Amino acid sequence: MPKILLEEKEIPTHYYNIAADLPFKIDPPLNPQTKQPIGPNDLARIFPMELIKQEVGLDRYVPIPEEVRNAYMLYRPTPLIRARRLELLLDTPAKIYYKNESVSPVGSHKLNTALAQAYYNKQEGVKRLATETGAGQWGSALSFACNLFGLECMVYMVKISFQQKPYRKILMQLFNGKIAASPSELTDYGRRVLKDDPENSGSLGIAISEAIEDAVNHEGTKYALGSVLNHVLLHQTIIGLEAKKQMENAGDYPDIVIGCHGGGSNFAGVSFPFLADKLSGKKKSLRAIAVEPTACASLTQGKYAYDFGDSAHMTPLMKMKTLGADFMPEKIHAGGLRYHGASPIVSALYENKIIEARALESQEALEAGVMFAKNQGIVPAPESTFAIKAAIDEALKCKAEGKSKTILFNLSGHGHFDMQAYADLMQYLPK
Amino acid sequence: MPKILLEEKEIPTHYYNIAADLPFKIDPPLNPQTKQPIGPNDLARIFPMELIKQEVGLDRYVPIPEEVRNAYMLYRPTPLIRARRLELLLDTPAKIYYKNESVSPVGSHKLNTALAQAYYNKQEGVKRLATETGAGQWGSALSFACNLFGLECMVYMVKISFQQKPYRKILMQLFNGKIAASPSELTDYGRRVLKDDPENSGSLGIAISEAIEDAVNHEGTKYALGSVLNHVLLHQTIIGLEAKKQMENAGDYPDIVIGCHGGGSNFAGVSFPFLADKLSGKKKSLRAIAVEPTACASLTQGKYAYDFGDSAHMTPLMKMKTLGADFMPEKIHAGGLRYHGASPIVSALYENKIIEARALESQEALEAGVMFAKNQGIVPAPESTFAIKAAIDEALKCKAEGKSKTILFNLSGHGHFDMQAYADLMQYLPK
Repeated sequence: MPKILLEEKEIPTHYYNIAADLPFKIDPPLNPQTKQPIGPNDLARIFPMELIKQEVGLDRYVPIPEEVRNAYMLYRPTPLIRARRLELLLDTPAKIYYKNESVSPVGSHKLNTALAQAYYNKQEGVKRLATETGAGQWGSALSFACNLFGLECMVYMVKISFQQKPYRKILMQLFNGKIAASPSELTDYGRRVLKDDPENSGSLGIAISEAIEDAVNHEGTKYALGSVLNHVLLHQTIIGLEAKKQMENAGDYPDIVIGCHGGGSNFAGVSFPFLADKLSGKKKSLRAIAVEPTACASLTQGKYAYDFGDSAHMTPLMKMKTLGADFMPEKIHAGGLRYHGASPIVSALYENKIIEARALESQEALEAGVMFAKNQGIVPAPESTFAIKAAIDEALKCKAEGKSKTILFNLSGHGHFDMQAYADLMQYLPK
Repeated sequence: MPKILLEEKEIPTHYYNIAADLPFKIDPPLNPQTKQPIGPNDLARIFPMELIKQEVGLDRYVPIPEEVRNAYMLYRPTPLIRARRLELLLDTPAKIYYKNESVSPVGSHKLNTALAQAYYNKQEGVKRLATETGAGQWGSALSFACNLFGLECMVYMVKISFQQKPYRKILMQLFNGKIAASPSELTDYGRRVLKDDPENSGSLGIAISEAIEDAVNHEGTKYALGSVLNHVLLHQTIIGLEAKKQMENAGDYPDIVIGCHGGGSNFAGVSFPFLADKLSGKKKSLRAIAVEPTACASLTQGKYAYDFGDSAHMTPLMKMKTLGADFMPEKIHAGGLRYHGASPIVSALYENKIIEARALESQEALEAGVMFAKNQGIVPAPESTFAIKAAIDEALKCKAEGKSKTILFNLSGHGHFDMQAYADLMQYLPK
């Protein structure tokens, strides 16, 4: 029985806030000028108060508003799948489960926080949200969420993706999103970048700077971020909370939890509710593995230091694993993993050796994605293939060691708008 | 509670064969030379015996092999959704349900019969299947199914789609399908067409002829068709059988069942299990509506006559609603609905006034698709938008008449590989 489903009434009623359970203190974000911890008022220009409260809150459980739960019902609870065919193919004694977030309307887990953010902004009278998007998953999610809650959505899309992914653009437009290729002529920062380099193909860091500037300069507009921040990770814990209930229904519990890692929200979403049991001492041996590309390996290769979240240095300084705010990663297909930093909480968990991290090459990940697509019938997002490859590696290790372990990974999204990645890959594969 | 789920063990154990319940005889397929009814041996060159038996069988229920049910578990049972948000948006007293076949690995209901056909061929020692594909849904489905059961798959893809849908091609290749643009140099018929017209952009009729020729001329190869034939419709009844159980669990029963109509398998799949109740007299007032494009309106505009299923006149003659085997439909985006004929059973049901048919313009259907995407978060396949539009029209009629009816339609697939249809449409929509 490979599919473990939940009823809609079993959609969690609360998010899980790992901050309540951390055995160490997270260094606070600092004002770049004063180097003093920033307060709620510093953030109020770009975020609604309820999200700022969540950003700094220490309550273990945060209630999910009824309107957001109702919106979640469009696609949640998502299925938990026991990948028996994959276990057979690998001939492994390991049990492999994956949480299938690809069934979300826009194709990934990003909608989990987009809906919450759009809702809280709407509640506080915000009319319009500005944001950035790299691969396009986050921009699609926020466009859809804004449309659902009656907000306008302005998306600064990294120019190279804007050019290479016309259908992601169409998807956002279908959901009423307004899109600009970043760097754009719409912001001071964009114009400055273009003046220095008219051919600049953009980066997530630049797009973030443009979106923040847009929010600051437009009446009724706030900014929304798709990863990194505490409140974003908080919303994504709905993934792990559902998975925990589903594993319980299956009479199982993971030895290893795996998520791909860009800014950290996908990894946090699937792993934090399980890490709660590790932190409480109930499941001391639990391993959680964040999987990142070698091309942008903030956890395994970055420094642990205060750094900016964007290229224009407009954000507060955050203590995180970082490759440097000006780091320009190679153009791998997994655009969602091309971020120079890691969320402060994930960074601290890694530094404190509570979680593990692993860097993989893009091609080996995509090849695992092809194997998965043939076996499970789901073409994974290039980002998700990193989690798939790590899960397969762990399953093969079980085989080599003759051990049966239970592996859970998050299938963060489908790759229907990323087929070029597979087209490029197939040129390298044996015919 | 908009989502009505079933457990995997509730996947139907049998297909429903409407032939057992028809109050009239279906005219048999004829040998084009002799004009005599064809026998099983005439079909044995291109189909395995088990499918030929299903083609002519009269048992009400046909068991689904365990291996096929196991493969169905990759995505079945599919959800039945009560589209409450859509009801609210339309402000209608009608209840709108849809069966969501878009969750299938390849993105449509086509996999339901692809898995069964691949399995039966494999059982009888076939090594390779040849087929045609228009929009690409069927070719993707058969590629995936063949790969799962260890067969080779050769797909003749209508040239215009081959050129305009590179990502559908990549998807088929990902599943190990071999693809040729049709008309191709691989068959006598393809070469003949190209000689007459080197720029010929292909049609479903031509591609069918090429695939049949391929199957006849290659050792160990059989042919597979994605619609029209009785056994294909039979396999698709799994949609309606599940939906019936789900409606029952929801304490409801449809007054109107709607499916888009190309060759007939999608419409048959959702409606036949309900039509069983109409034919038995249990639900006399049930209405079933097949929705076709005005550009290719075989049911509402075609003649009821014996005709060929393909352009090269290689198939048996079938009694059906047809626009003529040489009819070349306009290039609408709903490529899956561009077939000159209709399945013999659906044709006979229409002629006997047991079902209704309706023709819609492409643009009005796609506009309904945009409304649906914003409201439900699923971008529908262009084909499916015809069913959506008809369902919305019926719901608005309920509103005008102040009547509450229960409407069920089949969402046959998603449009992630058809975004160009929406891109083209958006040029016409008000900004």
